[in-house]
Amino acid sequence: MAVYTDVSFEELESFLAGYNIGVPLTFKGIAEGVENSNYFLSTGKGSFILTLYEKRVKTEDLPFFLGLLEHLAAGGIPCPLPVRNLAGAQSTTLGGRPAALFTFLNGVSLRRPEASHCAAVGTALAKMHAAGKGFALSRKNALGHDGWGELVEACLPRADEIEPGLADQIRTAHAEITSNWPNGLPQGVIHADLFPDNVLFMNGAVSGLIDFYFACNDAFVYDLAVMLNAWCFETDVAFNVTKSKSLIAAYAKQRPLSQEEREALPILTRGAALRFLLTRLYDWLNHDPHALVRPKDPRDYSRRLRFHRKVRGIGEYGL
Amino acid sequence: MAVYTDVSFEELESFLAGYNIGVPLTFKGIAEGVENSNYFLSTGKGSFILTLYEKRVKTEDLPFFLGLLEHLAAGGIPCPLPVRNLAGAQSTTLGGRPAALFTFLNGVSLRRPEASHCAAVGTALAKMHAAGKGFALSRKNALGHDGWGELVEACLPRADEIEPGLADQIRTAHAEITSNWPNGLPQGVIHADLFPDNVLFMNGAVSGLIDFYFACNDAFVYDLAVMLNAWCFETDVAFNVTKSKSLIAAYAKQRPLSQEEREALPILTRGAALRFLLTRLYDWLNHDPHALVRPKDPRDYSRRLRFHRKVRGIGEYGL
Repeated sequence: MAVYTDVSFEELESFLAGYNIGVPLTFKGIAEGVENSNYFLSTGKGSFILTLYEKRVKTEDLPFFLGLLEHLAAGGIPCPLPVRNLAGAQSTTLGGRPAALFTFLNGVSLRRPEASHCAAVGTALAKMHAAGKGFALSRKNALGHDGWGELVEACLPRADEIEPGLADQIRTAHAEITSNWPNGLPQGVIHADLFPDNVLFMNGAVSGLIDFYFACNDAFVYDLAVMLNAWCFETDVAFNVTKSKSLIAAYAKQRPLSQEEREALPILTRGAALRFLLTRLYDWLNHDPHALVRPKDPRDYSRRLRFHRKVRGIGEYGL
Repeated sequence: MAVYTDVSFEELESFLAGYNIGVPLTFKGIAEGVENSNYFLSTGKGSFILTLYEKRVKTEDLPFFLGLLEHLAAGGIPCPLPVRNLAGAQSTTLGGRPAALFTFLNGVSLRRPEASHCAAVGTALAKMHAAGKGFALSRKNALGHDGWGELVEACLPRADEIEPGLADQIRTAHAEITSNWPNGLPQGVIHADLFPDNVLFMNGAVSGLIDFYFACNDAFVYDLAVMLNAWCFETDVAFNVTKSKSLIAAYAKQRPLSQEEREALPILTRGAALRFLLTRLYDWLNHDPHALVRPKDPRDYSRRLRFHRKVRGIGEYGL
């Protein structure tokens, strides 16, 4: 939650000269997006988000991310639409950073979503998966199961500083998950980070899906596994099967899950828990005390991982 | 520029139950205000700023700050108007902090204001000084000339770490300024921190004066002295007399300056430069590396102070 690159009004004015969106009425840095600098902009023609890409988003990935948003928006998904400039480009440069302008979506993200919200977002996820079909570009999941080994090695030496026994838990879980990872599941474009932060609601309905900067090509059901972790645990890390059932049922109503996908779920939920445990742990251990963002507690995910590793069958997820 | 206190949508909802402003459409933390946490909120009834007061604003000062804004807004000054809740209160509590809701002002703050902007803000300042008359409460300037001694003592031992000779400069300037400080100048409510950050413009005209959390009762002309420091130096700290002339002339057209006030200006500009040098230096030397705000470079103000101490007469300010 920070603004890393400071944009003056004068820089904004010359940037906007390349667009046909009118004159700024309001321009404020917003505390949103761990990876980028974001500004809220309103003009006589509407409201917008201006994003400056900081080092964690690779410039060569921008055509995928921005092209995907345009593709999804054309398919009726309520996601930010990149506004093309007068030259037809989806991104340009501002303050020495790649920058893009997006339509602004109304709605608020929930801290404590209810089962009804889980159902609404399950439906939205399935629609997003369908709308991703036909998108011409593809992107490997940089944080997919075959990429965790490096993070495991980097984290193991100091993992027990965070929680006694954590190194052991990670080593065992990593071996067990990767050797049982299912192949050949139905694939397509997934969001890969659809946490409550990244979903906007209005009057109980989904009004926006945002922050597609982990989107990639991977198994559709992995998105569900991420969401079971992100939406279906209470703050005390108790699993709420009512929420999980609502989420999966609403998703499957739009896009039925095959028997293979259902059976893959327990290993994928462990994998998703391990992925967020590893990145949080890495950020925690390698945190720059001068950084403007406070790292998230990795223990929330070691507890989730322990839960999933005890699950005996898909019935425990409400299937 | 940070959000210190995190407010969930659910906390917001129960807070808004006490107001008659409708249901939230958008709620985002904004990177604005060094002292407080600020959120942008829009509802069907308009746009608002929600402010949570962190430790640097004293709760006992809130009736002065909030009452002043209501008084100024009633007098036609474009400042945030505190929205009273259903119980008639101007402030309440949220997330364990005192909190207030304000009308949102359109406009953008400038990084590099021109002489015409200086003139516009000079007029706005004089109108604010006039509108402050009749406000029932008063507040001492906590960072006035008789309060600098403590900061001087706290900063001197390590001042030379920042700039060789800085301790000497501060000691001499402090003695010279306080012993020549003029008394009996026309007083009233002043803003005391009217930097370009705190003024919003639309189409070249002032659309908002914000951030009144240093407002207090002091000499009107001290506000001008602060502004000569904040608006009339270029980024290379060269003084721009055209801007200064525009600012003072526009102010004086609304509220003529007495001979005493004009002659007081050189010592007051030195005092204002010393005040911002001292607070920036203190924050720089006592910066918590885990804080979300990066301190501002105090040397911008040691250079201003050196300029003012060489000024031979009010002609150099364009008077």
